[in-house]
Amino acid sequence: MPSYTAPTRDIQFVLQDLLAIARSPVPGHAELEPDFTAQVLEEAGRLSMEVLAPLNAVGDRQGCRLENGVVRTPEGFREAYRQICEGGWIGLDCDPDYGGQGMPYVLNCAVGEMFVSANMAFNMYQGLSHGAISAIHAHGSEAQKATYLPKMIAGDWSGTMNLTEPHCGTDLGLIRTRAEPQDDGSYAITGQKIWISAGEHDLTENIVHLVLAKIPGGPEGVKGISLFIVPKFLVNGDGSLGDRNGVTCGGLEEKMGIHGNATCVMHYDGARGFLIGEMHKGMRAMFTMMNEARLGVGLQGLAQGAVAYQNAAAFARDRLQGRDATGARNPDGPADPIIVHPDVRRGLMMQKSFVEGGRALVLWGASLIDAAHAGDEDAEALVSLLTPVIKGFLTDKGFETTVLAQQTLGGSGFTREWGLEQFVRDARITMIYEGTNGVQSLDLVARKLPAKGGKAVMAFFEMVKSFCKENDTEEMAAFTGPLKAASKDLQAAGMYFMQEGMKNPNAALSGSYDFMHLFGHVALGLMWARMSKVALEKRAAGEGDPAFWQAKLATARFYMARQLPATALHLSRIRSGAEPVMELAEEAF
Amino acid sequence: MPSYTAPTRDIQFVLQDLLAIARSPVPGHAELEPDFTAQVLEEAGRLSMEVLAPLNAVGDRQGCRLENGVVRTPEGFREAYRQICEGGWIGLDCDPDYGGQGMPYVLNCAVGEMFVSANMAFNMYQGLSHGAISAIHAHGSEAQKATYLPKMIAGDWSGTMNLTEPHCGTDLGLIRTRAEPQDDGSYAITGQKIWISAGEHDLTENIVHLVLAKIPGGPEGVKGISLFIVPKFLVNGDGSLGDRNGVTCGGLEEKMGIHGNATCVMHYDGARGFLIGEMHKGMRAMFTMMNEARLGVGLQGLAQGAVAYQNAAAFARDRLQGRDATGARNPDGPADPIIVHPDVRRGLMMQKSFVEGGRALVLWGASLIDAAHAGDEDAEALVSLLTPVIKGFLTDKGFETTVLAQQTLGGSGFTREWGLEQFVRDARITMIYEGTNGVQSLDLVARKLPAKGGKAVMAFFEMVKSFCKENDTEEMAAFTGPLKAASKDLQAAGMYFMQEGMKNPNAALSGSYDFMHLFGHVALGLMWARMSKVALEKRAAGEGDPAFWQAKLATARFYMARQLPATALHLSRIRSGAEPVMELAEEAF
Repeated sequence: MPSYTAPTRDIQFVLQDLLAIARSPVPGHAELEPDFTAQVLEEAGRLSMEVLAPLNAVGDRQGCRLENGVVRTPEGFREAYRQICEGGWIGLDCDPDYGGQGMPYVLNCAVGEMFVSANMAFNMYQGLSHGAISAIHAHGSEAQKATYLPKMIAGDWSGTMNLTEPHCGTDLGLIRTRAEPQDDGSYAITGQKIWISAGEHDLTENIVHLVLAKIPGGPEGVKGISLFIVPKFLVNGDGSLGDRNGVTCGGLEEKMGIHGNATCVMHYDGARGFLIGEMHKGMRAMFTMMNEARLGVGLQGLAQGAVAYQNAAAFARDRLQGRDATGARNPDGPADPIIVHPDVRRGLMMQKSFVEGGRALVLWGASLIDAAHAGDEDAEALVSLLTPVIKGFLTDKGFETTVLAQQTLGGSGFTREWGLEQFVRDARITMIYEGTNGVQSLDLVARKLPAKGGKAVMAFFEMVKSFCKENDTEEMAAFTGPLKAASKDLQAAGMYFMQEGMKNPNAALSGSYDFMHLFGHVALGLMWARMSKVALEKRAAGEGDPAFWQAKLATARFYMARQLPATALHLSRIRSGAEPVMELAEEAF
Repeated sequence: MPSYTAPTRDIQFVLQDLLAIARSPVPGHAELEPDFTAQVLEEAGRLSMEVLAPLNAVGDRQGCRLENGVVRTPEGFREAYRQICEGGWIGLDCDPDYGGQGMPYVLNCAVGEMFVSANMAFNMYQGLSHGAISAIHAHGSEAQKATYLPKMIAGDWSGTMNLTEPHCGTDLGLIRTRAEPQDDGSYAITGQKIWISAGEHDLTENIVHLVLAKIPGGPEGVKGISLFIVPKFLVNGDGSLGDRNGVTCGGLEEKMGIHGNATCVMHYDGARGFLIGEMHKGMRAMFTMMNEARLGVGLQGLAQGAVAYQNAAAFARDRLQGRDATGARNPDGPADPIIVHPDVRRGLMMQKSFVEGGRALVLWGASLIDAAHAGDEDAEALVSLLTPVIKGFLTDKGFETTVLAQQTLGGSGFTREWGLEQFVRDARITMIYEGTNGVQSLDLVARKLPAKGGKAVMAFFEMVKSFCKENDTEEMAAFTGPLKAASKDLQAAGMYFMQEGMKNPNAALSGSYDFMHLFGHVALGLMWARMSKVALEKRAAGEGDPAFWQAKLATARFYMARQLPATALHLSRIRSGAEPVMELAEEAF
């Protein structure tokens, strides 16, 4: 069985030392004093380790069962869900007017990492509700908010997002689910949705489905899509539950991982639905939540990498096999711990430097979302640019990290018993859902990069440049030097897209994935440079544990020396243009 | 359900056009005339598609069951195994004196790719037997050969390899299984072995275990290990089966993939064993089979990538989603097939260029093994050098290819129904067993590279150099140019190891994994350059299908432009040396 130790110390470092959250001007952040966040992280960590993590393998083995239209979640999930609700964790960052705790989103993410590391499939029930709560809060009428939010925020009801249909996922303009207007102002929703996470389950008394559908006579394609609230049980005027609505779970998808979460086929058979937001503007409503949803998936990739890394490091310290090439380190034992072998360390350093760098990036992104919510347009533009990078890069690398961690365990990594293989299987979905990583790269290059004449990316370059300039010291050169070089590669790639993409869109689109990774490396490089600065300052000031700062600096040096140089490869691929990718005839594949 | 189409055309191209096998001076190769190999591939392809592939998902879902000491293989496996035996496929390359067909190993590998693509878990029963047959053939006494080989080659009996114990896998010097000499010249074997593939099953009437154990009083460590034949049923003087031996299956391992193959815990309780080869020279006996065994695992990685790619390409041609950015390609349909999108093509080209390049590399390696068997010492040295590259690079990239193929399918890739996720789970083990890929890189850098003063690697460089020189034409420049640059990176890395590794072994060991990949890229680059040459010549001569040559050239250009430049990154990581990898304190992980 794998273990989980909540990384409260490192999260606290990112929140307080790196982001200096308690000194941030963003509304709400100043309340996040170190003592307070430490307490929240401690409690969330305890829940993660004691309640959620022990259920992770249980959920994987038992999966969910559909019996007579009812989905049974794995043993222990109901009790754990109760504890999450009672602790107020569902509504940690929700509006206090509806029972939420009104904390900033960044704290929700810090807590979320631990919940996801401990049990991703379980956390998804909560995560989907969070998305639905945000949508209703942003776009619902006052009456809708009053009807649904208090129950959802308390966790008595949960929520889902219904987008995909059998013939369309990415291309939502093709959806066929119909919404027929009724005399009472409601709509009759008919159609089939697939891959609906938490679409049906036994954790809550009601499930509030948010459903994309087309009202007949509306515009073609994505411009004719509207968003509807379709509760499993209709809600009476007094808030009590009424009739069962015409929505049923027609089957559970068998899949590679996240078995503890029910992935449902949903049938809508004239179900009563209530328009949320404006008619035909459903896609716009979805888009307003997209940064959060995608950042949340990036967080999942990171969190799976984080727990996998912990277990790999523990194994490498424990397992005795072979001898240190420079001399026995455990001469009285039968062999040395495998952590002495350079190649084992290489794998562990790749894992560690990703996990800690990624943690900083995702929490920085979350703090930008808080700023954006408070009306900071620059933060909004920057986080919109970073969102596809955070989603795509952190899930690709998060998955890679789970695979590396599995490899650290050798044969044990392939067995169920050690649990690493579950992290790999669970992490895999993060590269796919909420827009595949290919779609993220398209969003980045075709939409976010050129937005407002490239204003956001220019601001990002300026941020890197001024950081390097402000920290033009000898001891920082080991970090700013590689960062500058990597940032130069990113700028050159952006320039290439501007020049060539005008002539041929495929020249840019052929390089979009490499650009996303190039950007991800520069962003992580910036995080590591910033963390190094903090570590150097704290060490010089004699604050905290010197070993902690030492470890940060060593890990930063690894990232700079071994990982960041990947930017040159990505640039060279981008510059090779469209031809190598597009030349082969379709029938020759 | 995934489908499988045997790539007989492309395999035939590698055997006949690229390797010109029928004109090779290696004994046995001249018999491999095009008509003959075409016929063999056709028949093996038919078996793969019609018999083995349909059982792949069945094996994955049902797995193996242990009931009262008996392991039941999945439904249909027994019947399929009979067909494999009746076709003579078990002994395709085995000694005709014992009932084999005496074909070269390269043909066995060509056939093997298809069998593994169709059903890797099933093929492992046959593969393990093959290893045991080779060991007995190479090291057994005449009597042992006469007793075991005919039955094993016919497929009536199968074989296994028993190395790993709970506390040791890589470091076999630590094994505890004891072999006590008995008065009759046999040994009483006692101990526990784990992760024994095909250790117990219901496909054959007897199972011949090859077991590593220590005879008391022998040298410490790996120098005191001997190899034993321990049959499940003892064999009477007349060849009939006698008493049940003291070896039992104590449990089946639950694992990530290859569920159709029984991974067994084996208990040896004073079982009668018969020394094979010399006392205390068991490791040497294992080593003589290692090139074949490791190349066979590289082939598995490739084969899983190959079948995954096929399914990804079919999906991409079929699935309609979004529009070509340069103009609708299927204007009458609701959307264009996703193969029009550059990023989808990028993924497919990565898959295709790996699969075809890897196929060429592994079959070239197999042909070198044939030459080595016939006494060619240069071929022996070269394939010994290439073996860890073939194993490590082809399994890493093979796995990556299954992940890329899964990604091409988007959400469908995560579902069981489409079957891509099984290829990912099955391919994952190839990076681990038969020596983890980290161990391969260690073998490459610490053992193979410096062997005989670097003679083999010098010969490889010379081979690349003279190929480039002989093909110094304008139309070949697109291939030889990148190959030369990549080869230069490889030489620089070798030079770095020579200079720095002398001072600090960790400087070389920290870069071993990158070196293995660097080497893999150069090897695949060489394969693509050679294939391009053939394609240009055949096209100029008007031979064959012009579209086939066109596709080879386009795929080669992709590899050169997008994949081969990775060598520079690997070199830069290697040159960063040991410090970034070794600096962090052990307790800081």
